[in-house]
Amino acid sequence: MPNRLITLTTDFGLNDHFVGTMKGVILNINPEAQIVDICNSVQSFDVLDGALAIAQAASYFPSDTVHVVVVDPGVGTQRRPILAVNEKHIFIAPDNGVLSLVYERSERLSVRHITAEHYFLQPVSQTFHGRDIFAASAGWLSKGVEVAKFGDEIADYIRFSAPKPKSVSENSFKGVVLKTDKFGNLITNITPKDIPQLFEHTPPAFRIVIGKAEVTKIRTAYAQATPGEIFGILGSMGYLEISANRAAANRLAGADKGSDVSVVLA
Amino acid sequence: MPNRLITLTTDFGLNDHFVGTMKGVILNINPEAQIVDICNSVQSFDVLDGALAIAQAASYFPSDTVHVVVVDPGVGTQRRPILAVNEKHIFIAPDNGVLSLVYERSERLSVRHITAEHYFLQPVSQTFHGRDIFAASAGWLSKGVEVAKFGDEIADYIRFSAPKPKSVSENSFKGVVLKTDKFGNLITNITPKDIPQLFEHTPPAFRIVIGKAEVTKIRTAYAQATPGEIFGILGSMGYLEISANRAAANRLAGADKGSDVSVVLA
Amino acid sequence: MPNRLITLTTDFGLNDHFVGTMKGVILNINPEAQIVDICNSVQSFDVLDGALAIAQAASYFPSDTVHVVVVDPGVGTQRRPILAVNEKHIFIAPDNGVLSLVYERSERLSVRHITAEHYFLQPVSQTFHGRDIFAASAGWLSKGVEVAKFGDEIADYIRFSAPKPKSVSENSFKGVVLKTDKFGNLITNITPKDIPQLFEHTPPAFRIVIGKAEVTKIRTAYAQATPGEIFGILGSMGYLEISANRAAANRLAGADKGSDVSVVLA
Repeated sequence: MPNRLITLTTDFGLNDHFVGTMKGVILNINPEAQIVDICNSVQSFDVLDGALAIAQAASYFPSDTVHVVVVDPGVGTQRRPILAVNEKHIFIAPDNGVLSLVYERSERLSVRHITAEHYFLQPVSQTFHGRDIFAASAGWLSKGVEVAKFGDEIADYIRFSAPKPKSVSENSFKGVVLKTDKFGNLITNITPKDIPQLFEHTPPAFRIVIGKAEVTKIRTAYAQATPGEIFGILGSMGYLEISANRAAANRLAGADKGSDVSVVLA
Repeated sequence: MPNRLITLTTDFGLNDHFVGTMKGVILNINPEAQIVDICNSVQSFDVLDGALAIAQAASYFPSDTVHVVVVDPGVGTQRRPILAVNEKHIFIAPDNGVLSLVYERSERLSVRHITAEHYFLQPVSQTFHGRDIFAASAGWLSKGVEVAKFGDEIADYIRFSAPKPKSVSENSFKGVVLKTDKFGNLITNITPKDIPQLFEHTPPAFRIVIGKAEVTKIRTAYAQATPGEIFGILGSMGYLEISANRAAANRLAGADKGSDVSVVLA
Repeated sequence: MPNRLITLTTDFGLNDHFVGTMKGVILNINPEAQIVDICNSVQSFDVLDGALAIAQAASYFPSDTVHVVVVDPGVGTQRRPILAVNEKHIFIAPDNGVLSLVYERSERLSVRHITAEHYFLQPVSQTFHGRDIFAASAGWLSKGVEVAKFGDEIADYIRFSAPKPKSVSENSFKGVVLKTDKFGNLITNITPKDIPQLFEHTPPAFRIVIGKAEVTKIRTAYAQATPGEIFGILGSMGYLEISANRAAANRLAGADKGSDVSVVLA
């Protein structure tokens, strides 16, 4: 039974024809494919940003979904196109670590180097493998071509870890902002595993410094906070977010992706 | 016969995984659902902006379409998730008034408080009910679950009126800009019902002041105007728009959402 | 056999309900239609930008796809709605030249003036033919209505040529930037046919001046360049692009759409 559902996560944006062209390639190969955008506004060239997007969304899709992930600053070089299969889904991407956070969350995993050029759109350009290799491979895969037909398994695929918060002293931690969402929420790399006290029902006194803001409260809903207050909250991605009620915390704090987050427990 | 068509109107934007994740949740419940975006760039936290978007687009969709509307600054608080049924469509939204303009245009209406938690994605987060409650409920609804199964009817659902223009004197009116569209057209809250003279075949002399612009002409097509001219036009939403020919009226007038519109008839 | 696949290329943007409303109109007429966005962020009123988008993407779609293209500054005037059929696809658009680059690439072509008003959404507005004429016509076409039923063939449809590079002297050429893509690549109007030497395996020495940048290298992959280097590359659209490795060439060069490109061969 073919995998008809294909998702797209790319940094191609929506101001150009790129994403539309990829959809044309897929549908030309398999008119029955069903294509869903996860996010095509990954920050340009930013492999970690793409890794976060696909890792957040992938697990919510049905079994056998084919996820195409194209954040590909190395297009046209020797970096390999790969096909990764975990216990639930199939992923097609460049081998540059953009699937790293998917690998982290996979129970079973096999990764193949896509070498079956007869599935590519010919001639293959040097600048748009999203069209010529990744979309085309996804189209054939969605028609039922077996994963083994695309190439051999490899073990040396590239993976990185997202930056982890560090313990500076017993009660002091340093994290970083992984991304700012559309609402201005600052999504840090701090999880309940890293600093469990922060997320207890009645946490100890603490101070979080981020940009020019000092945060001393954890809220459980955005709307609990008073207007203008900046607070911490356990966000839907599983990370500590620095947020404001009906306002953009990134602007209030003067912080953004890459900003330091310092947490000191009393 | 299930309602396969589901639309999304949200303020989640397209730079994050949020909308993609909602689609995953729906398709995981009902792989046969067909999902269409109405607009995911509603202004953050802006319930009126969301109300305008869904009210404009909803009626063009086929009968039995399920419209999911998530502009939800109160997520995680006691505000209720609701399911509204009118003579043609089903709406799923937070009970914060975002369906107010849909209610206004409905001939028959019943509103239910969604309490059937077994249709929710568990555990329900405090920050992303778009995923855990609204998308999940839409998925089940599109599989044919009856509306009555989601919860009991309520009468005290929240509704507001869009700001209406006021008559200052017999020939003088004050309105407001409801929104600026992508072209820079300033969409006011003034309709032909409010000032019918303005839209007559040969209207009386008039003066509209908006920002630093003075408008003395009504046009029936954008391209009728001379370059640089700012004019009024009855827009496709049924409101008076202040526009320019191949130019952005909001920039020319120095006006935007919330700006006052003063109309004086001779 | 009906043409179920419909694509949209418009300048309506994603901040408003316009595109969602067009989809509603199509699905209300033909619930079986499959709608794919090519690009809805064509620059406002910019017919050439729309012409480039549809010409780039169209050919990748399956036979019998219906492409709807709405960049329509003349909406409400006498400009005609048209339906163009080439050897592979059907196009619905205003007759303002937005299909010019499609015409250029077509082997067989017939163009009809859409006059069959019974296929329009009534009453037809003066400001949103994307909804009332173009989407509605596409809906009926996708249900299998024959093209001849929409109106008679015409020969005087509007077409323009994209600006072509000029030869200033034997070894000196002047081109222009057609558009800047999401990555900041400057897409010029220069193709290998115009200056073949530039794209030879070992090109002669040359100098390209664009904005404040001087370019002396052609690369075959973005990642071949050193950081901060600005270089030329034959892009996926078939044009010379001025690019940078993991950086935005438009910002580095201080150039954008419309900027002059001067090429001098040694």
